[in-house]
Amino acid sequence: MTIKQEIPDIIVSRLPVYLRALQHMQNQGQQTTSSQELGERLGISAAQIRKDLSQFGEFGKQGTGYNIAFLYAKLREILKVERVWDLAIVGMGDMGHALARYSGFKDRGFRVVMVFDNDPAKIGQQAGAFTILTVADMVETIRKAGIKIAMLCVPASAAQGVANKLVEAGVKAILNYAPISLNMPKGVRVQYLDPSIGLQRMAYYLD
Amino acid sequence: MTIKQEIPDIIVSRLPVYLRALQHMQNQGQQTTSSQELGERLGISAAQIRKDLSQFGEFGKQGTGYNIAFLYAKLREILKVERVWDLAIVGMGDMGHALARYSGFKDRGFRVVMVFDNDPAKIGQQAGAFTILTVADMVETIRKAGIKIAMLCVPASAAQGVANKLVEAGVKAILNYAPISLNMPKGVRVQYLDPSIGLQRMAYYLD
Repeated sequence: MTIKQEIPDIIVSRLPVYLRALQHMQNQGQQTTSSQELGERLGISAAQIRKDLSQFGEFGKQGTGYNIAFLYAKLREILKVERVWDLAIVGMGDMGHALARYSGFKDRGFRVVMVFDNDPAKIGQQAGAFTILTVADMVETIRKAGIKIAMLCVPASAAQGVANKLVEAGVKAILNYAPISLNMPKGVRVQYLDPSIGLQRMAYYLD
Repeated sequence: MTIKQEIPDIIVSRLPVYLRALQHMQNQGQQTTSSQELGERLGISAAQIRKDLSQFGEFGKQGTGYNIAFLYAKLREILKVERVWDLAIVGMGDMGHALARYSGFKDRGFRVVMVFDNDPAKIGQQAGAFTILTVADMVETIRKAGIKIAMLCVPASAAQGVANKLVEAGVKAILNYAPISLNMPKGVRVQYLDPSIGLQRMAYYLD
């Protein structure tokens, strides 16, 4: 797919939001939708949605809208989540534990397969279905398993060091829960899940 | 501040990221920075950063860059997080518990003050420093406390109903951990913290 070089990141970032809405409609038994309906649900203009989707092909018909099952399958393929990606969690504090037991990855393209911590009191303990492994062997363990995606739940002070180790292990995508910006080499992507950032974005608009 | 009507949402959304980087630099004892240094750290162009900040005033000097303490204080003021906003958490599953004990809100402008659930087995139990309250009284309790911001950690199937109640209680900003898009009236903002969305945004770029 050479096409992907040309798609702006901002468009790619909206596709998972469309996918989630389509999945919800499908679960409700709905068969077709329109850019208008999607737009109203998501607070995005119908024109923007049509423009975004047109980057990847012709998915709807004038007047009849989108077939939900078809568009859902296509977006999963485009986002490469028609497969299931293995995830590692590093840092088994409250957030790591919550993610280890999180049921929301099902049908979204991901599953947790291993969890790590550096605390001797936690190593060997259970977290949900997983035995907590030691970070001492993490680079080798992740590399052997061929895991490309990790969720980083360590304290801010440890985050950059652990992220460097993940890169060494071959990880190409990090979902970062530590409240700190990571310096990563080219080819490694980071998404941030820092609740304070989301809260601050809204506080600006409050009276 | 009538100016805020004119600032695009995309610019506002970057300010908390700048603020976090400045806080980190300040904690490290650094006194000045530049749009170049901020840009390299954040993966945003220096020109974009200068343009974003110029929307709000003159914060730096050609050649000498930005005074970190000054810019940090100004951004906190612009984002209205120089004060401390009270937060309510609804849904005391793993994620709710993790947030109730999360230490990362300190110095970011927020503090949790009450937590709710609808499970009789959980109501009255402790979650971190908080006694879990019943959602049955939630609307009145939140309204009386004047809380404007809530974190929604209930299952997807319950999210819209609980969000409607939060709006009824006077909440104007919801940080939504449920993997579902909410329909909210004008004047109520939602930010989504759905780990699958972050993961899917990165999966697109993986081989």
